[in-house]
Formats: sequence, structure tokens, C-alpha cells
Amino acid sequence: MIASIDPFHAIAISREAHALEAQGRSILHMEFGQPSTGAPAAAIAKAHHVLDTDPMGYWESQALKERIARLYAERHSVSVDAEQVLLTCGASPGLVLALTSLFAPSARVATARPGYVAYRNTLKALYLEPVEVGCGPAERYQISAAALAALDPAPDGLILASPANPTGTIIPADELERIAQVCADRGIRIVSDEIYHGLSYGEPAHSMLEYAPDAVIVNSFSKYFSMAGWRLGWIVVPPAMIDAARARMGNLFLTPPVLAQQAGQAAFDCVDELEAHVETYRCNRQLLLDALPALGLARIAPPDGAFYIYADVGHLTQDSLGFCQRLLRETGVATAPGIDFDPVDGHRFIRFSFAVSTDRVEDAIARMIPWFAAQRRV
Amino acid sequence: MIASIDPFHAIAISREAHALEAQGRSILHMEFGQPSTGAPAAAIAKAHHVLDTDPMGYWESQALKERIARLYAERHSVSVDAEQVLLTCGASPGLVLALTSLFAPSARVATARPGYVAYRNTLKALYLEPVEVGCGPAERYQISAAALAALDPAPDGLILASPANPTGTIIPADELERIAQVCADRGIRIVSDEIYHGLSYGEPAHSMLEYAPDAVIVNSFSKYFSMAGWRLGWIVVPPAMIDAARARMGNLFLTPPVLAQQAGQAAFDCVDELEAHVETYRCNRQLLLDALPALGLARIAPPDGAFYIYADVGHLTQDSLGFCQRLLRETGVATAPGIDFDPVDGHRFIRFSFAVSTDRVEDAIARMIPWFAAQRRV
Repeated sequence: MIASIDPFHAIAISREAHALEAQGRSILHMEFGQPSTGAPAAAIAKAHHVLDTDPMGYWESQALKERIARLYAERHSVSVDAEQVLLTCGASPGLVLALTSLFAPSARVATARPGYVAYRNTLKALYLEPVEVGCGPAERYQISAAALAALDPAPDGLILASPANPTGTIIPADELERIAQVCADRGIRIVSDEIYHGLSYGEPAHSMLEYAPDAVIVNSFSKYFSMAGWRLGWIVVPPAMIDAARARMGNLFLTPPVLAQQAGQAAFDCVDELEAHVETYRCNRQLLLDALPALGLARIAPPDGAFYIYADVGHLTQDSLGFCQRLLRETGVATAPGIDFDPVDGHRFIRFSFAVSTDRVEDAIARMIPWFAAQRRV
Repeated sequence: MIASIDPFHAIAISREAHALEAQGRSILHMEFGQPSTGAPAAAIAKAHHVLDTDPMGYWESQALKERIARLYAERHSVSVDAEQVLLTCGASPGLVLALTSLFAPSARVATARPGYVAYRNTLKALYLEPVEVGCGPAERYQISAAALAALDPAPDGLILASPANPTGTIIPADELERIAQVCADRGIRIVSDEIYHGLSYGEPAHSMLEYAPDAVIVNSFSKYFSMAGWRLGWIVVPPAMIDAARARMGNLFLTPPVLAQQAGQAAFDCVDELEAHVETYRCNRQLLLDALPALGLARIAPPDGAFYIYADVGHLTQDSLGFCQRLLRETGVATAPGIDFDPVDGHRFIRFSFAVSTDRVEDAIARMIPWFAAQRRV
């Protein structure tokens, strides 16, 4: 029996948004988690050069693996060998690579609910069993060490995300350490999705590698590096897992794009440009945090990182997909419905992505003020 | 229990070849199946333009899906809707997408032995059961309808490859039709790997879609279009499978690279340039077919397509990996050992890839003549 996999509902919203745009409507795209900016200038320049000089066969950049390994020393004081780094065509196949290297069918893998839709769906597609741990505002939508310790039986694995999608919440260092301890005690293998690292508005996020050397880390160039459409990501595996992961990479995926690898290497040196994006997101976040209560959206977890706000709209609807469709059709603001992230409570949430320019956030707020006021009067 | 996956041994040969090259040795790379040419000029020009004008987020080209659908009408007189086409990051993840959309763990999937190593390994990594059908020179190294009909019990699936890797043999139209009939009668789902289509030296290859409308087709821009390092491929699925395949694409892979999609679209119009590559391969093939008997390599299946020659070296060795290593170290000619393609008989075969320039093939032949003569004297 083939696993039944839910579609991404945000894709339906986005298709309708683009159809409206094609009809001449002004649309503000806040439905997907992707920067509206392009790659840094030096990355683009490098790609131009490579296009003109390299026939580009199957290739894996040793220099990029070394640069990524160095990131963990510089940012997290953790020693990672370049051989522990595997380059992938983005974080999505990176997660497939991590999961197929760690688990056999029927393994039970815990995830936070709400959480990124692909965790649940990818687990199901690989015949692994998602164990969803409901996390509310009291837990800032994150799995706690206590919740993990209470799971009976212990799951075989855990997917962590900090900063998280759809909430942007970060797990504090002391809690990460407690989670690592529970996992070590109970034999739970950790996959830590750190794709939003570099995007935080208070304390920077810690890597799970600081507390759990056997954790498998997933990351990508799609968010902080603003290179979503280039399709480049990586995973870090413990030394004992290198052979299993490399064998899967070579057979299931082969190699990532040459242009993305070359440009990604150049992007590491574009700190000023990339940090300017973070400042834009910081500003956008504050604008939304200031405006949302006036829209009647008071129940949100202030996002520590990433570029999302997950807002409770339960006083207005119990049908988040229909609500997102109406918001789109009537204001041009495209958002993602909570049902993509939480099959139980997501019917009363929507997610805003603020990885757009600040004037677009201002425009969205201006359009939403009268619309939300009208919803409350209905 | 995590599946045990064999490494690609050709990768070890290639690593040593590059290490020797770094020491100043002259190396002729005939170990991998990739064109030494780059993408067509118009594809590169298009990529330059896109780099300068598009921030490149997650994106899927509707125009490219339509162009690919049209290929089946033009080349095979088969009607394919653009919605049946899914764009992937190369044929390797395309095969993963096809297999996960068609089969649940423990399903039994038949493949020809010898065959592309990733068929066996990807099946194992997804906990599907490879059913290897030994095919010798009498069957021109291809599964026949008769062999499929004789399998007891019937497998759940079949992976076909025509032209095949490592042998280049093509399954004739009438045999494809008989295979389709056996599969329809026995309920066997077909995955047809058509990655070497466009590269044939006699009759062009037929698509399995001509005979089995429910077959899943895998193809890519890596071979005929000479764009291996761009990472772009596609699959064609029957209408009833579109939702299942799209859900897996969105969750497991997301989207392929924007640059590759834009350049790939342009490559469709570069027929003259691409056909010139085929003429080079045709010339290389003939040079090798003329030269190999003089080297003592007489037992080969003359390749109908692709850019490989799979040669029996059983009179010289029973250790194809060691033989390839010696050939590399002593002549600089890098080849792939048969054990990558056939765990049973591969110890006495090696594979030459002739997707290089003609002067390199001539150089390789010149270096191998005295070396093979010396082997026979040992």
C-alpha cells in the first residue's frame, strides 16, 4: 500500500496568487518561506565566470565542504571534518538523505506539531512513523526535554527545528542540552534542522552539534544566503555514518549543481550584504509585531528567528485554508494556512512570511487593517 | 536494520585519477558517463541573462514541462500532458521519485544484470527488493519478454534501460511491445530509464510510452543535452499518478535549479550543436570497435546507443577493480570496473565511456595497445 501524502496547501494559495497577478492584481507574496532578494553580488559574479570557463560535469566541491566545516568551528566551537559534510540539492533531499541513512521502515520519529509539513510527509513517504508531539504557546511551540522523556515508548528518532517553521521560535541552549541528554539516555537519534540559522533577532541559535556530537545536521543556502532557487544544502553526519550517507548520496542523488556550489562558496564572503537582509527582516518583524494586535491578532509567539509569524485566527475562522483564500482574493496578501503545519489545530492559524521588502510589509499591513476590522464586525 | 549499500567503485578510480592528475600525470577520463563538452552556447547565454535579472526563488517552469511533453508527440507520436511531467534535480532523484510513488517497502523490482549500479542500490536504500535477471551476450545484456514471463512469482515492478548502461544496447521495438504485454498481463509496473535517448548509432530508441501508457519514464539533461553538472531531469507519470508524484516532489525534493530549467529550455533549440556531439560519439565508438579486437578485447556487445563499451577482460583478470587501477596507474586511462554493474560476473568486465573528444579516444587506444599486449604476455 503506497503511503498517502498530503499536498502543500500553500502551493495552491501561491498558484492562485500568481493567477491573480497575471490578471493585473497587485499581490504581496507572504505565503512561502523564501527571500525575495537574490544571491549576493559576488556569488552571481562567480557564477558568470564559471558559466564561461567550466563544462560542468558531475562534481562535488571539496573547498566548499571545508568552508562549511569551518563554520562550525567559527560559530559553534565544534570541530567538524570536511568528510562529515555532504552537499545536497537543498535541505529537502538533505532530510531524505539523513532519514534514509539513520532509519529503517517503521522507525518512529518525533516531531513538534506545529512543524514544517515536509517532516511529516517525508517520514510517511519513507514509511517511517511520525510521532507528533503537540506543542502550544506555553511551550513556545517547541518539543521540550520533559515531553521527550515522557514519550512511551521512546521514539527511535527526533527531528528538531530551531528556529522553527512556522513559528520562528528558538530552543534555548540549556534546553537543547537537556534534550541531548534525554536522547542519549533513551537512544533517540537526532536530526537537527538548522536551515534558519543566521536569522535570529535576539540570541543567536545554537547548533545541536554543541550538545550532541552524533546528531545529524541539516542546513541550506536557501534562507540566510538567499539562494533558494539555486538548490544547494548540506548535512553533517557523525564519522561513523559517513560511508552509509555517502553511498546513499551517490546512488539516490549523485551531486548538487556546480553553479550553486561555486556561487555558494563565494557567498560565504558576502557578510555585509547578507547581514543587511537580516536587518530588513528585523525591521519587518517589528512592524508586524506592532501591527498585528491592532488587527485583533494578539495570540502569536514572538519569533526569535527565521522570518515567520504564526498567528491564531481562531476568533475569526475554523477554516484556515478558506480564510487564506479570502484574504488573498480580497486584499492581495498571500499567506500560508495553518493546516500545512498542524493537522489538529492548524485550522485556526495562518503563517505570514516576512522575507520581503519592508515597503511590502507596510503595504500588507495597510491592506489588512480594514479587512480584519471588517471580519470582526461580521 | 539500515540497508547496506555498496559504494560506486568508479568514484574511487576517479578520485585516484584526479590525484594522479594533480601530480602532473596525463589522465584520460573514460570512467564516468558524462560528456566532456559543456551545455550548448544558447543555454549558457540564457543562464547569464537569468543570473542578471531573476532573484531565483523556488520555481518550476511550466514552459519547460510543456516543451518536454511536446518531445513525446514529436519523437514518439505519444500524447503527454504537461501536468504528467515532473521536473527533478537529475535522473537519480527522478528514479527515487518514481520508485517511492509506485512501490511500498518489500515490493520486488526486476532489473537487468549487468545494469546501472544505482538501480540495485536505490532499490535497497528504499527497502525494495531488487530481482536481478542475469543477461549475457546472447540476450545482448537486456531483459527479454520471455525472461520476464518466466519469473516466478511475477515481480511488482521492472526497471528497463534502453539504451543501457554499461552496454549501450537498445531493446528493439517489437521486444519492447512484447515486454509491455507481459507486464500488462502480470500486473508489473514499468519504470523506463530513457536517459540515453538521443544517443543512438543505428535505429533511434523507442520510448516505452509507445507501448505501455502507464509506464513511468525517467530522463535527464545530463547526457544528450550535455548538462550533467546542472542537475536537471524529469519523469513522466500516468495521469492517475500525478497527485502522488507531485506530493512526493514537493516534500522530498521541492524544486529543481532555476538556472538549469531556464538553460534546459534553451537547449531544446540547439539541435545542430547537440547532434555534432552525437557525431563525435559515433566516430569514437567506431574507433574503439575497430581497435579493441587488436587489444584482445573481442567479446563486447556493439553498443547501439549511449556512449559506453562494456568489454570482457576475463582472459586477463578476475579482479576488475584491481585491473582498472593498474590500467589507470600504468597508462593514465581511467575506466569503470564491471563490479559496479554486475556483482556476479562483473569481476571480468570493464566499461569504457567514450563521451570525450576523439583525440582523447585516439590517445587512449595508443596507450592501451602496448599495455594490453604486455598483459597477454604475463
